Order: sequence, then C-alpha cells, then structure tokens
Amino acid sequence: MTQTDAPRFPIPQLNALPDDIRERILAVQEKSGFVPNVFMVLAQRPDEFRAFFAYHDTLMDKDAGLSKAEREMIVVATSAINQCLYCVVAHGAVLRIRAKKPLLADQIAVNYRKADITARQKAMLDFAVKITTESHKVGEPDFAVLAQHGFSNDEIWDIAAISAFFGLSNRMANFSNMMPNDEFYLMGRLPKT
Amino acid sequence: MTQTDAPRFPIPQLNALPDDIRERILAVQEKSGFVPNVFMVLAQRPDEFRAFFAYHDTLMDKDAGLSKAEREMIVVATSAINQCLYCVVAHGAVLRIRAKKPLLADQIAVNYRKADITARQKAMLDFAVKITTESHKVGEPDFAVLAQHGFSNDEIWDIAAISAFFGLSNRMANFSNMMPNDEFYLMGRLPKT
Amino acid sequence: MTQTDAPRFPIPQLNALPDDIRERILAVQEKSGFVPNVFMVLAQRPDEFRAFFAYHDTLMDKDAGLSKAEREMIVVATSAINQCLYCVVAHGAVLRIRAKKPLLADQIAVNYRKADITARQKAMLDFAVKITTESHKVGEPDFAVLAQHGFSNDEIWDIAAISAFFGLSNRMANFSNMMPNDEFYLMGRLPKT
Amino acid sequence: MTQTDAPRFPIPQLNALPDDIRERILAVQEKSGFVPNVFMVLAQRPDEFRAFFAYHDTLMDKDAGLSKAEREMIVVATSAINQCLYCVVAHGAVLRIRAKKPLLADQIAVNYRKADITARQKAMLDFAVKITTESHKVGEPDFAVLAQHGFSNDEIWDIAAISAFFGLSNRMANFSNMMPNDEFYLMGRLPKT
Amino acid sequence: MTQTDAPRFPIPQLNALPDDIRERILAVQEKSGFVPNVFMVLAQRPDEFRAFFAYHDTLMDKDAGLSKAEREMIVVATSAINQCLYCVVAHGAVLRIRAKKPLLADQIAVNYRKADITARQKAMLDFAVKITTESHKVGEPDFAVLAQHGFSNDEIWDIAAISAFFGLSNRMANFSNMMPNDEFYLMGRLPKT
Amino acid sequence: MTQTDAPRFPIPQLNALPDDIRERILAVQEKSGFVPNVFMVLAQRPDEFRAFFAYHDTLMDKDAGLSKAEREMIVVATSAINQCLYCVVAHGAVLRIRAKKPLLADQIAVNYRKADITARQKAMLDFAVKITTESHKVGEPDFAVLAQHGFSNDEIWDIAAISAFFGLSNRMANFSNMMPNDEFYLMGRLPKT
Repeated sequence: MTQTDAPRFPIPQLNALPDDIRERILAVQEKSGFVPNVFMVLAQRPDEFRAFFAYHDTLMDKDAGLSKAEREMIVVATSAINQCLYCVVAHGAVLRIRAKKPLLADQIAVNYRKADITARQKAMLDFAVKITTESHKVGEPDFAVLAQHGFSNDEIWDIAAISAFFGLSNRMANFSNMMPNDEFYLMGRLPKT
Repeated sequence: MTQTDAPRFPIPQLNALPDDIRERILAVQEKSGFVPNVFMVLAQRPDEFRAFFAYHDTLMDKDAGLSKAEREMIVVATSAINQCLYCVVAHGAVLRIRAKKPLLADQIAVNYRKADITARQKAMLDFAVKITTESHKVGEPDFAVLAQHGFSNDEIWDIAAISAFFGLSNRMANFSNMMPNDEFYLMGRLPKT
Repeated sequence: MTQTDAPRFPIPQLNALPDDIRERILAVQEKSGFVPNVFMVLAQRPDEFRAFFAYHDTLMDKDAGLSKAEREMIVVATSAINQCLYCVVAHGAVLRIRAKKPLLADQIAVNYRKADITARQKAMLDFAVKITTESHKVGEPDFAVLAQHGFSNDEIWDIAAISAFFGLSNRMANFSNMMPNDEFYLMGRLPKT
Repeated sequence: MTQTDAPRFPIPQLNALPDDIRERILAVQEKSGFVPNVFMVLAQRPDEFRAFFAYHDTLMDKDAGLSKAEREMIVVATSAINQCLYCVVAHGAVLRIRAKKPLLADQIAVNYRKADITARQKAMLDFAVKITTESHKVGEPDFAVLAQHGFSNDEIWDIAAISAFFGLSNRMANFSNMMPNDEFYLMGRLPKT
Repeated sequence: MTQTDAPRFPIPQLNALPDDIRERILAVQEKSGFVPNVFMVLAQRPDEFRAFFAYHDTLMDKDAGLSKAEREMIVVATSAINQCLYCVVAHGAVLRIRAKKPLLADQIAVNYRKADITARQKAMLDFAVKITTESHKVGEPDFAVLAQHGFSNDEIWDIAAISAFFGLSNRMANFSNMMPNDEFYLMGRLPKT
Repeated sequence: MTQTDAPRFPIPQLNALPDDIRERILAVQEKSGFVPNVFMVLAQRPDEFRAFFAYHDTLMDKDAGLSKAEREMIVVATSAINQCLYCVVAHGAVLRIRAKKPLLADQIAVNYRKADITARQKAMLDFAVKITTESHKVGEPDFAVLAQHGFSNDEIWDIAAISAFFGLSNRMANFSNMMPNDEFYLMGRLPKT
C-alpha cells in the first residue's frame, strides 16, 4: 500500500477468519488478482462483514432496471460528496470497466454535471446527491422528475438505496482510514490488448 | 397511522412474505404489541430486509462496551441531524425505555449539548455527529479525545458504525416516507405502574 | 430540574422582584401549576422581561387570523432549526394542547415536511423557515406562494414576526442555558380523562 | 427614499397613530431632523412598536458596562451577517457618531476581523457572531474567552441580548422591505465643522 | 492608514521598483491624489503586479457592453461575499463615482437584492454571485435567464470573468491584510460643488 | 473530445490568432503532442489570454521555494473544492508527472487528508483550502502553523497566490464548459518504458 498512515484498526490474519468469510475473500482474490482492502478491514467483525456484503450484493448485482454501470455511477457520485478516497478509487475502477469508458469515473468524481452521460443519468445522479445531502427534503417534485425520465419505482428505490448504502460505506472507510489498493487506480484506463 | 401522506411504496401483505421475514415480524408484534412500520416498508425487498436487520442486530444487540441506552443515544443524535422523523420517534421511544429516563430522547433530539448525560457521553455524541456530517475530516485528534474519555477501539468502532448505519436508515425512511407508528410517541414517557 | 448544568445566570428570588413581574409569575403558576423557567431566568432584568412578554403576548394571544395552534407550529419549527431545547419542549407542549393533537409537536420538531398538517400550513412553515435561515432572500415569489394559499398581509406579518421573535427567544435560551421544566415534556400527550 | 421597491406594507399616517407613538416619532424627528423608516413601518402595529422600542431602549441606552459605541458595533456585525440593509446603514451611522470614527462602521460591516478595534472588542464580536449563527453551540469555552478579556456577566448578557434582539430586527426589516433613509448613509462621515 | 494591524508583507520602496511599475504608480498617484494600497502591496512581486493589472485593465476598462458602473457593481457584490474589506471599500468608491449614485455601493455591499438597480442588473449580480459561490452548478438555465435580459455572450463572459478575477483579488487582499486607504471611504459620497 | 456538451463559446481558428498567442500554442503542441483546451478557449480574448498565462507562469514556473510538484498539489486541492473538471484532470496529470507518483493526484482530488504526502504538505494544503473557502478568516494562527512547518514568507505568498489564481481559473473553466483533453486522463499513470 502507498498510504503513509496505517489502517487504524488491526487487519486480521486470513487464516484466522471464519470459513465463509475466508472463502469469499479467496474467491475475490482469485477473480481480481488481489484482495481489496475493504474485505480485510471489515473482516475483523464477521457479522458486520456478512451484513455489509449481503446488502452490497443485493443492491449491486441485480440484473433488472439500472445497468451495472449506472449503479457504479451512483456509488462514485455519492462517494465523491462524502470525500471517501477508498470508494471513489475502487468503484471508479469498477465503473470504468462496467461502462467501458475510461474517462467517466474521473468526470463523475469531480463534477457529474460535466460528465459524458445522458440527461436521464444526470437526473439519476441529481436524485442520488439529494439523498446524500438532504434526504429530509425529498418529496413529490423529485419523484416527478424521475418519472419524466422514465424511472420505475423499483429503479427509484435502487438509486436511493445505493446512495444510502454507500453513505454508510463511505463513513466506515473514512473513519477506519481504509486505503484503496494500488491496483484500482489504473484498472479500466487502458484499452484491452 | 396519523400521517397525511401514504407511504410512497406499496406495503406488502404479511402472509405473502417469505417465512423468515413473516416470523420475525410476528415475533416483534408479539413482543411490542404492534408492528413497527420499518418492518413492513422494508419487507417488500426480502434480501435488503435481511441484510438491514442483520446489520442492525449486530450493532445494537451487543452486550459488551457501550450500553444499550448509549447505542440509542447515538441513533437519536444521528437521526435528528438527518431530520428523520421515523428514527427520531421510534428510537426516541427505545432510548427512553433503555435509559429509564423519560426526558432524555427529546433533549438529545433537539440539542444533545444540553442533554442530561455525562461528559463522556457528550464526547461520544460529538464523534457520532462528526461521522454523520464530515467523516472525511475524522483523524487522530478525534481519536485522542475519545481515548481520554476511556473509549476502547471496539467502542469507537461501534460509535462510528451505529452512526453510519443509521445514516443509511434515515435516508431510506426519509425517501420512502416511512412514518413512525403512533404507539412510539408515548412509549417510555410514563412511570411504570 | 433535570439538567446537569445549572442555569448560567443566578435565578432571582421571587419576592425580590418588582410587583408587576411577581404578579405575572404568580398568575402563571396558578394557571399552570408551575413556573416555566423562562420567567425566572428573564426576571433578573425587569425591563427586558416586560418588553419580552409584551412582544410575546401581542404576537401569540391574538384571536384573528392564524389560529393559536398555527402560531405554536411556527414557534416549534423555528426553535427546532435554532436547536433551542427550552422552546421546542415548552412550546411543543403548548402546541399539543392548542392543536389537540398529541403527535404534532414531535413531527414538526423533527421535520415539518412530514407532519400531519395541511398544505397551507406547510407553506406557512416554509416561509417561517426562510425568515429564520435566509430572510435577506425573502421576496415577491415567497409572498406570491403565501397569497395562493390565502394568507392575508396581516397573517404574513404574523408568520414573520413570530419566527423573528422566537429567533430572539431561542438565542436567549441557548445562551443562558435555560432548561425546560420537567412538566412540559408530558403535557398534552395523554387523552383527558 | 431611493429604493425602487416600495415598502411591502402600507405606511400609516402620522396623525392616525396613538398619541404615545406619534409623540415618540415627533421627538425623534425633532432630534434627528427626519423620521427613520423603522418607526413608520412598525407603527402600523402599535403594540409591537411599543414592545420593540422598549426592548431596544433597555438594551441600547444603558450607561454601565459596554460603551454605546460597542453596543452599536454588535448591531452592525449582527446585521451584516443577516444582510439587513436597513440596520447596517442606520446603525452604521449611529456607530460612526458614537465611536467618533468615520471608517469603523464600513470595516465592521464587511469583516470585523480587519476592523480598527481592540482585541477585546474582537472577542465581543466573535461572541455576538456565534450567538447569531450557532447559539446552540455556545458553552463554557466561549464564556472563558470572554472572561479572559474581562467581560462581566452583565456585559456578556448584553452582548448576547443585543445580538439576539437585532436578529429579530434584521428579519423584520428584511421581510418588510424596510429601506434606510437616505440621510443615514452620510451621517458621521464628515468632520464636524 | 487607520488599521491596527500592519500589512503582513513588507511594502517596497517606490524608488526601488522597476521603472514600468513605478511609473504606473506615480500616474495613479497623480490622478487620484494618493496611491491605493493594492499597488504597493502587489509591487513587491513585479511579474504578478504586471499580470494582475493587465488582467484588471482588460476586464474593467472596456467601453463596449456592460457599463463601467455595472462592472463595479459586480466587483462590489463579489467582494462582499468574500468579505474583502479592501475591495468593498475601494471599489465601492469607484462605483459611487462611476454610477453617480452615492448610496449604491453600500446597498450592493449589504444585500444587492435591495439595491436601487434594474431587474436586469439584479440578474447580472445573481449570475456573478453564482460564479462566486457555486460555479460548478452554472449551466444552461443560468444562461437562459441572462439571455432573457438581453445579455450578449460577450457580456456574459465579462460578468463571469470580472467575478472570477475579483475572487482572486479578494483572496490576495484578505491574505495579505491589505487595508483600504482612508481616502476611499468618503469618495463619491458628496455632491460635487 | 469526449464531452457531450460543446464548449459554450466558439473556439477560434488557430491561424486567426495574434502571432504571439499562436506561437505559444504551437510550442505547447510541439512539447505535449496536443493543445490543451484551456489555450483555445481563452484565446478568443487575446488580452485575457496574455494576462492569464503571464500570471500562471510567474506562479508555477518558479524554481525557488515550493517544488513544482507542491505547486501542482495546491492546484489540484483547490480545483477539487471548486469542482472544476478541467483543472483537476489537467493538473492532476501534471502533478503525477512532476511528483513521479502516479496515485497522488487522485488522492488529493478526493481527500488530501488521506494522501501520501508529508505533514508539511498537509499544512500547506490546509492553508490553500482556507484561502479557497474562507480567506476572510485567515490570520495570525494560520501563519503560525505554517511557520512551524518552516514555510518562508515567500512560500506562504506562493501558496495563497496559487490557490487564488486557480480559483479564478476554476471559475472560468466551469462557466465556459471547458473540457479536459482526453490525453490528460492517462498521463503519468504508467511507468516510463
């Protein structure tokens, strides 16, 4: 890792973890070639680990409605507002891969209003940002805009839930000084050869 | 329910729910005498329901470290910042019961700095509030203050995780127009007779 | 009193007060069964006491226009923004009694947008909140919305003046560490028997 | 008057006012050479007029403690935050006269941290600004700073009360589109000849 | 100078300056009767001085499009937001002279929404303020409003560029503790005799 | 260019530009292999172009004091606050190259508090951020912290001036819809081969 500061809480040993957690981590490692730090930081509390990833998977691995790239757009926009280094860098990588657009994640992280996305996707991110910053003011006018862009109730719930869940994730990463693995920074930036 | 606006998303029928979810809801009903609306609103998505309550239970039902009343203080302070009516009212009720102090929840909901709690508990809520409002600025000086008040690393993680989790919960309740059941408003306000 | 901290300024002795102030306080005590702390805290400065309550009475005891419950809604919404424990709790009690709705004060204190009030009353509170947070931006579009809801010029002045006056009250209570009497917390929550 | 917009509420006729109010207004006119608009705007509601000026006089005409110039400094700093044109211009004039410093009001209106005042006066304005912007966070550390600068409890109350009272005044002036009389702009800027 | 604090950085000697800078300063002195402090503070870095005034002159000395008074309105509104004492006072003086309206600068400095200017000029200042406070949100709706008021593309660029340039100037003056010369405060306030 | 929106203002033809500007642009093109869009957007106003780059060069091409990588850190941190896509991406590229650290720009853009930089560099960015967000509060305590980290007066001026200048640049890029060239996104991310 590049960061100057160590993670604030001790990282558990892989072989000391419960079987289900160790197996998930090994599966990720096999698929990605490395273990994203979020797995190791959260593994020190197995029950939170299980709930966190169950929540994550049900929101992010869905096939219907929002595309997987759109889900990652929401994550990056939310995480940028919360200034979460881990989530912007790690999910920026996933967004680049899912969207097959190497520039998109940086654009959304800095100012999604200038990003190379559709007007419908900007409305989606406007709503995600409002969930993040002032959910107490969300009301019918917001839903009306989303409906005009053709979002279903299920998609609207997904936008809100992804933004809300990553608000949690951002706070945990910020607080625990979770650092993105070096591998994420370059992923999805180069054309496949 | 008292609210003028219906919940934004259709409430599922209890007998159409998966067994585990229906059973959890019936158990709550038996214990409390009513079904808190959060169960019915979230039940329309069983996997999110399961992840949400697994996360909730591991953070809130723990015996070691922070007392159960202290955990509820964090919920109320966080939810007040996020202006979440459901969570302030429902967890205010739980806080009154757990702390056996009928005035405490209202005090924390309005301004925890004036509440009848210890200096240590105010430091706990200062940290929870910082997690809620600017987690990107959390750093060593914050941990030093917590350490001076004798909080362990495990307790610090709990404060942060409870605040982060209820940030998620607040956003879901605000967005879905989740209303507190009428029963919560009076719970814990009267002396047991 | 429940609070851990004493009021910051010495509370005067009732019998050392000027006659008119002592009489007002005794009258309140006879009517309410206790002396709300605001009377004792402000009584240490008789001229401010007299001006404060003269201002209060002319705004709050009026029969025409806004109902007395609506006036208290404005107080609670304003005081919640200013995080004034005394005013939210004390006027929350009065609001419950005036509106004969035991849940209303808590709803308005947390997020009036979710409260069980009319659209007209929400417009009234939108305006009160704007007076509280950015009165320098109030202008014709705000008055136009109020006119659409049928508010007269006199009622508009009342909304603004009540919000402005309780902004003063909130600051005095916050600064002087004025604590709500325990009696307020439960008032108006129980059905009359 | 210079303003393009008329005051929002009808200005009463002087001879239609109650005697005590008309007499106060005539006395001001005799002393100042003109009637400050605040008198005419507020006179449409005699009871509010009386309470407002009673409050004003007891806070601003006191001889002990803070100097009259210092009281006006608090008014100008508070009114600048609330972006109240009437109060900054009218009380800026009074401040110039009271302090016998023709440049001071403009300095405090723009940024009191750069004004030609003492460190003690800057601490006084720091406190007034905190009362104005976040009175719910005022606490012992603030009082300790004031005590270090030698402020008595009575003076501290005055700072808070003046700031709170003019917060009310600022909101009433902003809302009612009260415009400063042209005469105020130049008052106290020229050496007496 | 009136200020209590000296400028933070040493003021260079006029005769130690490069010829072009000294000549510009002497020309200003001849025209104005004094040397505005901004010249002396910036002169300690000749290349920045030259770039600053070249930028200033191309934006402020243009004859087409916005009037010179309108350009100064933008400067005063921008500088008031940034709480820059030097720029509000010095450019307030220039605005009074350019607009031949002795009250205008104080009005714009406190709250341009109440100033004696046209609706078109208020739209101009709305845009300047948005450039100053949230330029990342500027978009087509903003340009549409400006177009409705008849602003050309060239004028829109000027509004943005003047606001952006004085944002720089405000920060340099604030940071370097640059104080307005006493002469500015009264300039343009008196009728020519 | 990838962006969906065209730049708001017409891009001039290279051969229609004044000689000095065309030559500068051709020199950049020869060195970089492409013409950064900032040159073409600003070239439509030659005098602003010249002042802008003169200011830029004197602040960024200096050899003494702050390293060139440190100057770029200030640019990236400032531009991230102002949500300027062009400046974060373009100067992020320059920072990666100057610092020879491919991960650094992303870290500073999201949250410099977590970046792999020294405590001295964090103090430098704390100051740059304060210049950007509340320069009116900058004062002796800020300078004392910088002095503790060994910054000279000249270096302090550079931090402030770079932050102030790029605040101007950010506003111009945001307003004119200036988009970063695609080339910037990947620059400095790969090891030299």
